[in-house]
Amino acid sequence: MTTTTDGTSPRVTVIGLGDMGSAIARTFTERGYRTTVWNRTASKSAPLVDVGATAAATAAEAVAASPLVMVCLLDGTAVEQVLASVDTAVMGKVLVNLTSGSPAQARANERWASERGAEYIDGKLMGDPPDIGTPQVLIPLSGSRGALDVHEPILRELGGIVYRGEDAGFAAVEFMAQVAMGYEMLIGFLHVLKLVQAEGVDVAAFGERLAGSVAAYPPLLTSMAKAVATGEYPPDLGPLRVQAALMDDLITHREAVGVESARMREVKELMDRRLADGHGEQGFSGLFELLAPRAHG
Amino acid sequence: MTTTTDGTSPRVTVIGLGDMGSAIARTFTERGYRTTVWNRTASKSAPLVDVGATAAATAAEAVAASPLVMVCLLDGTAVEQVLASVDTAVMGKVLVNLTSGSPAQARANERWASERGAEYIDGKLMGDPPDIGTPQVLIPLSGSRGALDVHEPILRELGGIVYRGEDAGFAAVEFMAQVAMGYEMLIGFLHVLKLVQAEGVDVAAFGERLAGSVAAYPPLLTSMAKAVATGEYPPDLGPLRVQAALMDDLITHREAVGVESARMREVKELMDRRLADGHGEQGFSGLFELLAPRAHG
Repeated sequence: MTTTTDGTSPRVTVIGLGDMGSAIARTFTERGYRTTVWNRTASKSAPLVDVGATAAATAAEAVAASPLVMVCLLDGTAVEQVLASVDTAVMGKVLVNLTSGSPAQARANERWASERGAEYIDGKLMGDPPDIGTPQVLIPLSGSRGALDVHEPILRELGGIVYRGEDAGFAAVEFMAQVAMGYEMLIGFLHVLKLVQAEGVDVAAFGERLAGSVAAYPPLLTSMAKAVATGEYPPDLGPLRVQAALMDDLITHREAVGVESARMREVKELMDRRLADGHGEQGFSGLFELLAPRAHG
Repeated sequence: MTTTTDGTSPRVTVIGLGDMGSAIARTFTERGYRTTVWNRTASKSAPLVDVGATAAATAAEAVAASPLVMVCLLDGTAVEQVLASVDTAVMGKVLVNLTSGSPAQARANERWASERGAEYIDGKLMGDPPDIGTPQVLIPLSGSRGALDVHEPILRELGGIVYRGEDAGFAAVEFMAQVAMGYEMLIGFLHVLKLVQAEGVDVAAFGERLAGSVAAYPPLLTSMAKAVATGEYPPDLGPLRVQAALMDDLITHREAVGVESARMREVKELMDRRLADGHGEQGFSGLFELLAPRAHG
């Protein structure tokens, strides 16, 4: 199937045709954009050429083909290598890098682009390849606001985009913070399931009940973040002195059934320090004051 | 104010008049139950006598006054002391112990009661004293089903009761597991806030966005608990091999900005072990297989 485009539809280049890059190139091609693709292993281009994309012979040629160049590679190292091969061909282009990576990498990429007269936007894809092109994919973006203003419509084709600020690293910060919160919850959840299983409780039924409890937390998270932002810590889950009284029981119980208690011991130690500092009437959010980076604490 | 009762309204005794015990005794008294109260420090009884409760001179006398005896003390040690002073006066009574404590304490209390011809129900109060008597308070109960059947209406006066099973320890298991999940989320949340703050992101605005993401997790928790219960681990957040690829970036980034990474390192180590065992196409829930108690793993 070849998609019909006309000579005036916007041009876009997609570099990197893994699962994500291919889904991105396919979305653009099928929606009528004049799409140029490149991948180190050229065979990945074939299915996209079949639907109407143009395959470039080199990354530099792909970059030359469009004002907007999307990069979606395996990792930061792959990005460095491809950008080095392209070098000054990026002059005057807008680079949108959707590769996984750190805030530091994003900032380094922005400097690299700026030195070659290109504008840079960093983005992170929060979702699965089959959902590219739907609102199921959330895409934090950061970097050049001016470049985003020009290319926002085409970026919106990919998912729900959210601009996080001029600091190119902010999209990566958002991604890493969101992903970390997910893993904090999920690993804690698995430990809790181990606890109830060790006690002979039906794990599936408990999971359903616990999911119900978790559904009640978002307003608390919002208010705790406000507490942290203002440095005032009202008694969120009740006063800390009351909360702290539970922790020994929790830890003793976990250790009795052989479930790890590292986080609960950390919480107790932090609570004890807050109590010792005279903050027993404040809430859990006040533990923030004791967290590393200690140099700023 | 004295509440009007008649000679046929049910009798109930409340032992322990801290914030929770007082709220419980007040609820019963104001709703027309013939309520007997006792507290080690007798002055705590006065406000309840003012609204119509009867103060007993000793714990044994308080127990003798009603077929249903609610116990709500500071901790397990206080419960042991009071029960020892009451001893065989509990014969034929139903003891409902709402004191914080471990599953082991609940099971020990049940044995103690059973040896003296009393029935035992253990309960945990999930909520704050001012909410006693409203559905805002959730009360898992476990122990004697027969005793619960008889006294369910009066127990329902206190909040949303949920029966967790004949094992007297199950109410405490439920409480500890639910509370632990809360703290896992909240301490993880504070670390994540530290991360975004260290990167110069607006903490309050980020907290609101993250709360929105957390609101999407309950269905995933339900399905992960099912995966754990069945021992089959479908690719929940995507295949583990894809998830694992992110962890090094996450850890490196956290360490670069000075935020603790203990949980993320634990997650990575567990992911690596699952990958090494050939489970890279399964989901995160499969990490459950590697968690302690290792003896059963």
